[in-house]
Amino acid sequence: MDLPRVAITYCTQCRWLLRAAWYQQELLTTFHRELGEVALRPATGGVFRVEVDDVLVWDRSERGGFPDLPELKRIVRDLVAPDKPLGHTDRVAEG
Amino acid sequence: MDLPRVAITYCTQCRWLLRAAWYQQELLTTFHRELGEVALRPATGGVFRVEVDDVLVWDRSERGGFPDLPELKRIVRDLVAPDKPLGHTDRVAEG
Repeated sequence: MDLPRVAITYCTQCRWLLRAAWYQQELLTTFHRELGEVALRPATGGVFRVEVDDVLVWDRSERGGFPDLPELKRIVRDLVAPDKPLGHTDRVAEG
Repeated sequence: MDLPRVAITYCTQCRWLLRAAWYQQELLTTFHRELGEVALRPATGGVFRVEVDDVLVWDRSERGGFPDLPELKRIVRDLVAPDKPLGHTDRVAEG
Protein backbone atom coordinates (compact mmCIF):
# COMPACT_ATOMS: atom_id res chain seq x y z
CA MET A 1 0.00 0.00 0.00
CA ASP A 2 1.32 3.41 -0.91
CA LEU A 3 2.04 5.72 1.97
CA PRO A 4 0.10 8.99 2.10
CA ARG A 5 1.18 11.95 0.00
CA VAL A 6 1.21 15.62 0.96
CA ALA A 7 1.03 18.28 -1.75
CA ILE A 8 1.78 21.94 -1.05
CA THR A 9 0.65 24.33 -3.79
CA TYR A 10 2.23 27.77 -3.56
CA CYS A 11 2.16 31.05 -5.47
CA THR A 12 5.42 31.73 -7.28
CA GLN A 13 4.50 35.40 -7.83
CA CYS A 14 4.26 35.78 -4.04
CA ARG A 15 7.69 34.13 -3.66
CA TRP A 16 6.35 31.46 -1.33
CA LEU A 17 8.72 28.70 -2.47
CA LEU A 18 10.94 28.96 0.60
CA ARG A 19 7.92 29.03 2.89
CA ALA A 20 6.49 25.94 1.19
CA ALA A 21 9.89 24.22 1.32
CA TRP A 22 10.15 24.93 5.04
CA TYR A 23 6.77 23.28 5.75
CA GLN A 24 7.77 20.40 3.50
CA GLN A 25 11.07 19.76 5.26
CA GLU A 26 9.44 19.94 8.66
CA LEU A 27 6.81 17.39 7.60
CA LEU A 28 9.40 15.09 6.03
CA THR A 29 11.58 15.25 9.12
CA THR A 30 8.71 14.47 11.48
CA PHE A 31 6.90 11.92 9.29
CA HIS A 32 9.73 10.35 7.27
CA ARG A 33 8.37 6.86 7.92
CA GLU A 34 4.70 7.78 7.54
CA LEU A 35 4.68 9.81 4.31
CA GLY A 36 5.41 8.46 0.85
CA GLU A 37 6.21 11.91 -0.47
CA VAL A 38 5.74 15.63 -0.08
CA ALA A 39 5.38 17.55 -3.34
CA LEU A 40 5.73 21.26 -4.04
CA ARG A 41 3.45 22.54 -6.80
CA PRO A 42 4.06 26.00 -8.28
CA ALA A 43 0.97 28.10 -8.93
CA THR A 44 -0.01 31.75 -9.21
CA GLY A 45 -2.62 34.14 -7.87
CA GLY A 46 -1.91 34.00 -4.15
CA VAL A 47 -2.62 30.29 -3.82
CA PHE A 48 -1.36 28.42 -0.77
CA ARG A 49 -2.96 25.02 -0.26
CA VAL A 50 -1.97 21.86 1.57
CA GLU A 51 -3.52 18.53 0.65
CA VAL A 52 -3.08 15.12 2.27
CA ASP A 53 -3.96 12.66 -0.46
CA ASP A 54 -7.33 13.94 -1.65
CA VAL A 55 -8.14 15.91 1.49
CA LEU A 56 -7.66 19.67 1.39
CA VAL A 57 -6.40 20.46 4.89
CA TRP A 58 -5.37 24.09 4.43
CA ASP A 59 -6.43 26.77 1.96
CA ARG A 60 -5.12 30.26 2.52
CA SER A 61 -8.12 31.77 0.73
CA GLU A 62 -10.46 30.20 3.30
CA ARG A 63 -8.27 30.49 6.37
CA GLY A 64 -6.98 33.98 5.72
CA GLY A 65 -3.35 33.08 6.32
CA PHE A 66 -0.79 30.36 6.78
CA PRO A 67 -0.86 27.49 9.26
CA ASP A 68 1.25 27.56 12.38
CA LEU A 69 3.71 24.71 12.06
CA PRO A 70 2.49 22.82 15.17
CA GLU A 71 -1.08 23.09 13.90
CA LEU A 72 -0.14 21.76 10.47
CA LYS A 73 1.80 18.88 12.03
CA ARG A 74 -1.19 17.95 14.17
CA ILE A 75 -3.52 18.05 11.15
CA VAL A 76 -1.19 15.81 9.13
CA ARG A 77 -0.57 13.52 12.10
CA ASP A 78 -4.29 13.04 12.70
CA LEU A 79 -4.68 11.86 9.09
CA VAL A 80 -1.58 9.77 8.52
CA ALA A 81 -0.40 8.56 11.94
CA PRO A 82 -3.10 9.27 14.55
CA ASP A 83 -1.26 7.35 17.29
CA LYS A 84 2.06 9.14 16.79
CA PRO A 85 2.99 11.46 19.65
CA LEU A 86 4.38 14.82 18.55
CA GLY A 87 6.14 15.61 21.82
CA HIS A 88 6.52 19.32 22.36
CA THR A 89 4.00 20.12 19.62
CA ASP A 90 1.30 18.21 21.50
CA ARG A 91 2.23 19.70 24.85
CA VAL A 92 1.96 23.24 23.49
CA ALA A 93 -1.52 22.39 22.23
CA GLU A 94 -2.57 21.05 25.63
CA GLY A 95 -1.04 23.93 27.50
CA MET B 1 -2.58 18.31 -19.96
CA ASP B 2 -0.68 17.89 -16.74
CA LEU B 3 2.76 19.41 -16.64
CA PRO B 4 5.69 17.06 -16.03
CA ARG B 5 6.56 15.90 -12.55
CA VAL B 6 9.99 15.43 -11.01
CA ALA B 7 10.44 13.03 -8.09
CA ILE B 8 13.60 12.98 -5.99
CA THR B 9 13.98 9.90 -3.79
CA TYR B 10 16.56 10.30 -1.04
CA CYS B 11 17.97 8.26 1.83
CA THR B 12 16.90 9.59 5.22
CA GLN B 13 19.58 7.55 7.02
CA CYS B 14 22.20 9.37 4.95
CA ARG B 15 20.61 12.72 5.89
CA TRP B 16 20.15 13.74 2.28
CA LEU B 17 16.94 15.72 2.81
CA LEU B 18 18.66 19.09 2.56
CA ARG B 19 20.58 17.99 -0.52
CA ALA B 20 17.36 16.79 -2.17
CA ALA B 21 15.56 19.99 -1.15
CA TRP B 22 18.33 22.08 -2.68
CA TYR B 23 18.02 20.32 -6.05
CA GLN B 24 14.25 20.64 -5.79
CA GLN B 25 14.30 24.37 -5.14
CA GLU B 26 16.76 24.96 -7.96
CA LEU B 27 14.54 23.03 -10.38
CA LEU B 28 11.39 24.80 -9.21
CA THR B 29 13.04 28.19 -9.55
CA THR B 30 14.32 27.48 -13.06
CA PHE B 31 11.28 25.56 -14.34
CA HIS B 32 8.40 27.07 -12.37
CA ARG B 33 6.28 27.35 -15.52
CA GLU B 34 7.32 24.02 -17.03
CA LEU B 35 6.95 21.63 -14.05
CA GLY B 36 3.70 20.64 -12.42
CA GLU B 37 5.45 19.57 -9.24
CA VAL B 38 8.66 18.37 -7.67
CA ALA B 39 8.23 15.72 -4.97
CA LEU B 40 10.65 14.57 -2.29
CA ARG B 41 10.33 10.90 -1.39
CA PRO B 42 12.03 9.58 1.74
CA ALA B 43 13.76 6.21 1.42
CA THR B 44 16.59 4.27 3.03
CA GLY B 45 19.67 2.31 2.03
CA GLY B 46 21.70 4.99 0.27
CA VAL B 47 19.12 5.66 -2.43
CA PHE B 48 19.31 8.87 -4.44
CA ARG B 49 17.22 8.87 -7.59
CA VAL B 50 15.71 11.55 -9.79
CA GLU B 51 12.80 10.76 -12.07
CA VAL B 52 11.06 12.96 -14.63
CA ASP B 53 7.61 11.44 -14.99
CA ASP B 54 8.41 7.77 -15.65
CA VAL B 55 11.99 8.35 -16.81
CA LEU B 56 14.79 7.62 -14.35
CA VAL B 57 17.33 10.34 -15.13
CA TRP B 58 19.73 9.86 -12.22
CA ASP B 59 20.47 6.91 -9.96
CA ARG B 60 23.34 7.28 -7.53
CA SER B 61 23.89 3.51 -7.48
CA GLU B 62 24.60 3.55 -11.23
CA ARG B 63 26.36 6.90 -11.50
CA GLY B 64 28.47 6.57 -8.38
CA GLY B 65 27.57 10.00 -7.05
CA PHE B 66 25.31 13.00 -7.26
CA PRO B 67 24.61 15.15 -10.31
CA ASP B 68 26.21 18.51 -10.74
CA LEU B 69 23.44 21.05 -10.69
CA PRO B 70 24.04 22.36 -14.24
CA GLU B 71 24.03 18.80 -15.54
CA LEU B 72 20.76 17.99 -13.76
CA LYS B 73 19.17 21.18 -15.08
CA ARG B 74 20.20 20.30 -18.63
CA ILE B 75 18.80 16.76 -18.27
CA VAL B 76 15.47 18.08 -16.98
CA ARG B 77 15.38 20.88 -19.56
CA ASP B 78 15.95 18.44 -22.43
CA LEU B 79 12.91 16.44 -21.29
CA VAL B 80 10.44 19.13 -20.24
CA ALA B 81 11.41 22.29 -22.14
CA PRO B 82 13.96 21.46 -24.86
CA ASP B 83 13.81 24.96 -26.36
CA LYS B 84 14.39 26.76 -23.07
CA PRO B 85 17.80 28.44 -22.81
CA LEU B 86 19.54 27.99 -19.48
CA GLY B 87 21.86 30.96 -19.82
CA HIS B 88 25.02 30.53 -17.82
CA THR B 89 24.37 26.81 -17.33
CA ASP B 90 24.44 26.27 -21.11
CA ARG B 91 27.49 28.47 -21.60
CA VAL B 92 29.46 26.51 -19.01
CA ALA B 93 28.59 23.31 -20.88
CA GLU B 94 29.74 24.77 -24.20
CA GLY B 95 32.91 26.20 -22.72
